[in-house]
Order: sequence, then C-alpha cells, then structure tokens
Amino acid sequence: MADKNQLPTITHRQQVAKSNLFAIEQIDLTFSNGEKRQYERMIGSGRGAVMIVPMLDDETLLLVREYCAGTHSYLLGFPKGLIDQGELPQQAANRELQEEIGYGSEQLYQVSELMMAPAFFNAKMTIFLAKQLYSAELEGDEPEPLEVVSWPIKDYKELLQQPDFTEARSIAALMLVRDFLEN
Amino acid sequence: MADKNQLPTITHRQQVAKSNLFAIEQIDLTFSNGEKRQYERMIGSGRGAVMIVPMLDDETLLLVREYCAGTHSYLLGFPKGLIDQGELPQQAANRELQEEIGYGSEQLYQVSELMMAPAFFNAKMTIFLAKQLYSAELEGDEPEPLEVVSWPIKDYKELLQQPDFTEARSIAALMLVRDFLEN
Repeated sequence: MADKNQLPTITHRQQVAKSNLFAIEQIDLTFSNGEKRQYERMIGSGRGAVMIVPMLDDETLLLVREYCAGTHSYLLGFPKGLIDQGELPQQAANRELQEEIGYGSEQLYQVSELMMAPAFFNAKMTIFLAKQLYSAELEGDEPEPLEVVSWPIKDYKELLQQPDFTEARSIAALMLVRDFLEN
Repeated sequence: MADKNQLPTITHRQQVAKSNLFAIEQIDLTFSNGEKRQYERMIGSGRGAVMIVPMLDDETLLLVREYCAGTHSYLLGFPKGLIDQGELPQQAANRELQEEIGYGSEQLYQVSELMMAPAFFNAKMTIFLAKQLYSAELEGDEPEPLEVVSWPIKDYKELLQQPDFTEARSIAALMLVRDFLEN
C-alpha cells in the first residue's frame, strides 16, 4: 500500500523538448518501495485558467461553439481562458465572458476547482457560475466571433448527448452547476 | 457568426518538438473570414483511453490514490488507462480494473465519451460503470500497488470536497454515473 505522505523522490530532471507553447520535462523517480521509473511531464505556466457557466436567466445556459485545433472541429463548451498576470480568477472570468459572449456578470459563484490530466500537467481551472448578466463587450484574441448557443438547463440530458459537447471540463462544470443550483 | 460547417483550412503543418511520449505540431490556419493564425497541438497516439467507476455493491464506489507526476502529488480518482492495440474499450476497462484494484467486472455499462482539452489534444476517453465485481488480479506496470479507497456514493458531496479529488474527468465520471443510476 502506497503511503500517500511518502512522495517518490525526483533524482533527476531534464527538459527534453520545447516549443512556443509547451515544454516537456523528463524526470527520474525513486518510489518509496525502491522502484525506479522515468516519466515525462509538461512544465506549465502555472497561471491557472477559468471556465464560466453563464446563465441568462434562471432557466437558460449560454455556451460557445469554438474551433478546437486538437480535434480540428468546432465543439460546444462553456467560455474559458487563462488567467492573465495580476488578475484574480473572478476578474479573469468576467473578462473572458465579455470577450467570448458579450456579457459581464454581477454575480459570480465559485463552484469548484479542477485539475486537467494531473499525471502530465499542473493545470488548475476554477469553475464559476455567472448570473445577473449585463451586456458588455471586450475585444479578445479570437480569430472569429464565437457562435453563442443558449440551452435550457432542464434539457441538460439532450446537451450531454450532443456529439460536439464532449469536453470533460465542460461536462464536469455542467453537472456541478446543476448540483450547486439544486442545493 | 462562425459557420460550424466551414472549418478553417490548414495551410501548413510542421512538427516542432518531440520527446518519448509527446510530439508537438505547429499548424498555420486560415479561418473562413480570412483571419490567419498559427496554433500548436499535440499529435496523439489516437489509441483512446478508458476510465472505470467500479461499484463494489449498490452503495460503494471504489477509487485509487495514485502518484501524479504533473502535480508531484498523490491524487484520488477512478481507475483509468490507455486502450492497447487490438483491444475494445470494454476489454481495456476490464483489464485496467484487474491491474489497478484487483477486480474484474461482469457488467460494464458505457456511460459517456469525453474529450480532454480538445484545443490541444485529440484524446478520447470512454467512461464505464462497472458492477458485478469479482476478485481477479493482473500485473500492471504500476511502480507500486495503488491504494484502493471505498466511498459511499450517497456521500458524493464530501468526495467532491476532498482536496485530492480534483481531476476533471473523475469528477465528470462521478456526476455522470450518479445521473445514470438515478434514471
């Protein structure tokens, strides 16, 4: 049984690949039982990210349909983005909302904090529910205006069945917000 | 408004970094409105992965606590792994269960398919609920035995509050299985 307090020791670290966005590190590890392994992981910016579930009223979710290069397809999900230097997560949330869907929010609730693929990344995302929306636009760095899609929250099962609504963090955010609103 | 049927054109692709596990590609894109962008994305194995939510009985979830190199910490989540060459997703699920928690399953239900960070990856994960468990062990490639943790599904809110239960796909799987079982 692994003792969760006894972390493996990193005996060697080496950057083995680098691009504009990504840096990959190879680490040599010795586990508490003496086993040795070599793993790879991404060295991140550590800036963190936000995802926002905006509600136009008590019934209506807003989503965006955006080009995703990894899958080379347009996918449906909630607005999201990296936290800028010096920004608080809720400030980043309100900025991304204005850039991506043309609304600000007077009431942001922090619903959860998620990690993406922690075997390889150290990437934290804070999930917000945004209510009391008001019209406000900010220029973002999107190459084209995003398609904004409204969806009744009571029809969340149909949303889960959409072939273009599959992103793990958007699904987690939808289900966590449903749970948050019911309690 | 972006026309979701009119994908941007990839005008150039170039591998810009490579390690044992990862390959990074730079792509030049022209969007349907004429805007040009340069993006980076990961070239994946395309093998796909599985995550399994095992239930020892109608009340009890099983989780594993495993070392994650990205965060250099032990984190709680559901058993998961890559699909081997020639395996069906449900075969991979039953193999991973036996490797990670020492059980096989006589009843696997496919609950969902998720994508991880599709802006950068083309990584699909199939989520299974596993019932009718039987003792069966297979040797995996884990460096140490994983700590198996049981949790009453009715206490899912406490699980969501654990600081080491934060992985987006595990949270999505938990909430989707709850929804699946209620219907």
